[in-house]
Amino acid sequence: MAKIDENSVGIVETKTICIVQADSPLSLESGKTLGPIDVAYETYGLINEKKDNVILICHALSGNAHVAGHNSPDDKKPGWWDMMVGPGKGIDTNKYFVICSNFLGGCSGTTGPSSINPKTKKPYGLDFPMITIADMVKVQKMLLEKLGINKILAVIGGSMGGMQVLQWAIEYPDFMRAIIPIATTTRLNAQSIAFDAVGRNAIIGDPYFNDGQYQDKQGPDKGLSIARMIGHITYLSEKGMHEKFGRELKTAEDYKYEFNSEFAVETYLDHQGQAFVERFDANSYLYITKAMDYFDIERSYGSLKKAFAKVKSRVFVISFISDWLFTPAQSRAIVDALFANDKDISFCDIDSPYGHDAFLLEPETIGAFISGFLHAVHEPQAKQPQKTDSTRKKRRLRRLDDAIRTRVDYELIESLIEPDSKILDLGCGDGQLLTSLIEDKNIKGHGLELEQDLVLECINQGLPIIQYDLYQALKNCEDKSFDYVILSQTVQTIKETEKVFTEMLRVGKKVIVSFPNFAHWRCRAQLLFTGKAPKTKQLHFDWYNSPNVHCLSLKDFDQFCDKLNAKIEKKIPITKKRLAPVKLAPNFFAEQVIYVASKD
Amino acid sequence: MAKIDENSVGIVETKTICIVQADSPLSLESGKTLGPIDVAYETYGLINEKKDNVILICHALSGNAHVAGHNSPDDKKPGWWDMMVGPGKGIDTNKYFVICSNFLGGCSGTTGPSSINPKTKKPYGLDFPMITIADMVKVQKMLLEKLGINKILAVIGGSMGGMQVLQWAIEYPDFMRAIIPIATTTRLNAQSIAFDAVGRNAIIGDPYFNDGQYQDKQGPDKGLSIARMIGHITYLSEKGMHEKFGRELKTAEDYKYEFNSEFAVETYLDHQGQAFVERFDANSYLYITKAMDYFDIERSYGSLKKAFAKVKSRVFVISFISDWLFTPAQSRAIVDALFANDKDISFCDIDSPYGHDAFLLEPETIGAFISGFLHAVHEPQAKQPQKTDSTRKKRRLRRLDDAIRTRVDYELIESLIEPDSKILDLGCGDGQLLTSLIEDKNIKGHGLELEQDLVLECINQGLPIIQYDLYQALKNCEDKSFDYVILSQTVQTIKETEKVFTEMLRVGKKVIVSFPNFAHWRCRAQLLFTGKAPKTKQLHFDWYNSPNVHCLSLKDFDQFCDKLNAKIEKKIPITKKRLAPVKLAPNFFAEQVIYVASKD
Repeated sequence: MAKIDENSVGIVETKTICIVQADSPLSLESGKTLGPIDVAYETYGLINEKKDNVILICHALSGNAHVAGHNSPDDKKPGWWDMMVGPGKGIDTNKYFVICSNFLGGCSGTTGPSSINPKTKKPYGLDFPMITIADMVKVQKMLLEKLGINKILAVIGGSMGGMQVLQWAIEYPDFMRAIIPIATTTRLNAQSIAFDAVGRNAIIGDPYFNDGQYQDKQGPDKGLSIARMIGHITYLSEKGMHEKFGRELKTAEDYKYEFNSEFAVETYLDHQGQAFVERFDANSYLYITKAMDYFDIERSYGSLKKAFAKVKSRVFVISFISDWLFTPAQSRAIVDALFANDKDISFCDIDSPYGHDAFLLEPETIGAFISGFLHAVHEPQAKQPQKTDSTRKKRRLRRLDDAIRTRVDYELIESLIEPDSKILDLGCGDGQLLTSLIEDKNIKGHGLELEQDLVLECINQGLPIIQYDLYQALKNCEDKSFDYVILSQTVQTIKETEKVFTEMLRVGKKVIVSFPNFAHWRCRAQLLFTGKAPKTKQLHFDWYNSPNVHCLSLKDFDQFCDKLNAKIEKKIPITKKRLAPVKLAPNFFAEQVIYVASKD
Repeated sequence: MAKIDENSVGIVETKTICIVQADSPLSLESGKTLGPIDVAYETYGLINEKKDNVILICHALSGNAHVAGHNSPDDKKPGWWDMMVGPGKGIDTNKYFVICSNFLGGCSGTTGPSSINPKTKKPYGLDFPMITIADMVKVQKMLLEKLGINKILAVIGGSMGGMQVLQWAIEYPDFMRAIIPIATTTRLNAQSIAFDAVGRNAIIGDPYFNDGQYQDKQGPDKGLSIARMIGHITYLSEKGMHEKFGRELKTAEDYKYEFNSEFAVETYLDHQGQAFVERFDANSYLYITKAMDYFDIERSYGSLKKAFAKVKSRVFVISFISDWLFTPAQSRAIVDALFANDKDISFCDIDSPYGHDAFLLEPETIGAFISGFLHAVHEPQAKQPQKTDSTRKKRRLRRLDDAIRTRVDYELIESLIEPDSKILDLGCGDGQLLTSLIEDKNIKGHGLELEQDLVLECINQGLPIIQYDLYQALKNCEDKSFDYVILSQTVQTIKETEKVFTEMLRVGKKVIVSFPNFAHWRCRAQLLFTGKAPKTKQLHFDWYNSPNVHCLSLKDFDQFCDKLNAKIEKKIPITKKRLAPVKLAPNFFAEQVIYVASKD
């Protein structure tokens, strides 16, 4: 009997339900029809009274309805996302009612090519109609409705599961309050189509494939295992694979000079291929990869922007920096389109070495993000309990160092902003300014931040936060699409300053900028009398480790605005001690300064 | 009849020669023996009187001896590197005598598994002994000696050809004056072994493989084409593939919802697979990929450093930034080991989107580098005719702008250096200082530079130049392995200054640093009286587009040396007009400064 850990959902049963009857078949995207349709699903946790705690999980290519726990006491392996789903886990079954169904075309209980074709009384094989991601999602929705669920908290899924998540949000925008597409894409690129095609070639070219009618004899095992091996290579990063296997030999010390698998990575692939053949159906593999290849939101809806205009839910996109199958760039395309549509979009590109499989292998990191986001969506009023690890503590202390400065800065900035405005905060840190502005001025805002820990803090506070290069994010915004674009205490550290400012002035009706004044009298005096690069409380780094790549003064910035044809609406030079603006010789006496500028 | 361009080598004949007789077979690395061995080869150009113009080209996995020209007037396709080899081309057959042979185990004329086994009078098939890169190189050397060639100018090869090149240089270090390994590695990483293993699995698992005895019947065509398809995906970059094919459909406008190839990239792979089956032998594919997998210089020689200690030739390593099969990091490992061994090593990581195949698809760029390098090796005294394109012209003009400053700087630096020293010039630009030092002081030196155009200029001048991050390069050097490490007019633009300086002081017996003095009176006066970030002839950028990330003065640098426990041996403050050092209040009057520092 398998040892079941105390945070497991325990023993669960896969249920099967008939969604579509034979006499009223489902119309598919291809124009064909299909019926009857059975759906296999599992649930974990309990639905609450308000019925507002339902989470739908969409599984990936080789997954199934069995997300968590064990199907029997003898079941050796738990469900495929057991690390993420359970009591107290990232998707907490003490709080949420979680449901997952095997998708249409699968081979784990839901109707697929290995099901019996009622017309022939034999398995469908290649007579099964082609299905698409949209068809899969349609069937999932029918299942939920059949279970009496008409509105859910969130749809979550990684990889091909993420495609279903996106399809859900576009096609049934009123059905959910949030979506979390992870390590996914709106359409495969040429390379991914190529890998899929080679896998299908291996299956269809296997002499035992027999046009898909192999159920009572040997099947295309070799072809299916080749396809799976290719898949597994694409799921890991080169680095991750090298760290895991290197060039290690499996058994011998020396080369055997023969063709049997010798390297550890070879026997790993042999094992993965073999294990897959034992649990998966080759025809399903063909249909599912084809559904992935066909998935193309741009094509289906005209453009990503048009497609995502329909979305009403909050969106949290997660990608992984080492994922080369569904790349961060593909996730950013989703983020761009939602951002351009003025949607409530958050994004984190998680620093993991595990490639595409990171969505299965980084439960702690992803768990923190997902649980924070779900909590903020589910109970927006309840403050999130802060989980502070040592790194974060250190960073917090470092920030406290700047706290006085920051506080002055933020209070003044807040005083400049009209209530109910739309704000973009560039380099928003832990979201302190945005939070105040939302609470005090009812603004609607987005933050941009690069540091993963700070992004998590924003997520925990329910702030829409995008982990993104400033310039790249600005480029995707429409002209004058924000009332204020804020760049606070960051101008001296950014590169390509002119490009960024030009974009800020284009995107914001007003631009608010604050920075330490390099021409403050203390700096001048230091350079003049000591002949050293200035170092003050505002500029407290040594020259050789300063993050400040620019030294600029009020006069410098005045001229810069002039060059960009920007109108300076306000210029508020301040010292640390006095919140009131410095009136006398500000370029000499101000320690920092806040500008409000605009450009028609 | 195919149209043969005027820069072609024309009609060439593949010759075959018997290298090893049946009665005195060759001992192979595996311990087995093989004989007889025939070798197929081609030559282009003429050998000169001195016999010092011979270039050996080593081909890659699917290549053969037919590098350039056409084998017959009806031959539709020229040789596999026709763009590179011919009159006036990158490898100029007007100057060089070029030879290439099909490697051992191949299927294009040289003895391989499809050759007749004298014992059975049938093709060897799997009775062919396992061969290694070392065996291939051994046979190549026997061929050259049989042709009366005992010393060659250079060995050149890309991909698996590059492995042979490395093997040549290590095993027969006196045989050549230079090597150019391109897009290669000292050993496959786990991911590449995995791809090879899947390809072999597809072949061996093909029911028509018949244990390698398929010559008189249908062979494992499906398996071989699957292997080739996988290979082709790895030869292109994701970006290159997406630009070439995108998601385009081959014929129809709409999805056909069927399993035949629909996307352009699918039909491309089908074609590549099919074409390969027609020209290549499946057994050879098995043996060759296995030879690649086994290749492991670290394993064979104890470590890369030990292996490359044997090298005597000049080395020019070329990689491509988008190559994810044999990555730039793998090339850098070669560079590191040669650099650590104090060899004459140059390196360029070429900016190309074409992935691994760039070595076949970027003939102009690579051609410029290779021809420059070969010329410098072949005729070190003859100045290279400068090919100046417009970009380079512009850059040259931009540099002329700084010329006066630079000249002063360089002349002073040169005066500080002892003859016959060993020098490392960090950020060496077009190599002006290094060239002078070599001519005037007979120094031995290496330059580091990041810009590809400047790297090419150094290559053209025959300078050992490495395109490399300063810190990464320094990290690989031994303590006190250079007499002087020079950082001229670059300190204000480098990041991680402290780390870099610490390494410089460790690696160099003396460190020479020059930079513009930020505390020059003009700067002080500007900040004091105008309240603007200083902008002078030495610091002539606006704050928002300055490449100078640090502002530092003599005093700053004095304190920095103090912090690093470095001894300041000389400090020479200078103004532009006066070459003589500034004696009065140098931190106030000096426009720039040169330091000589050291640390025990």
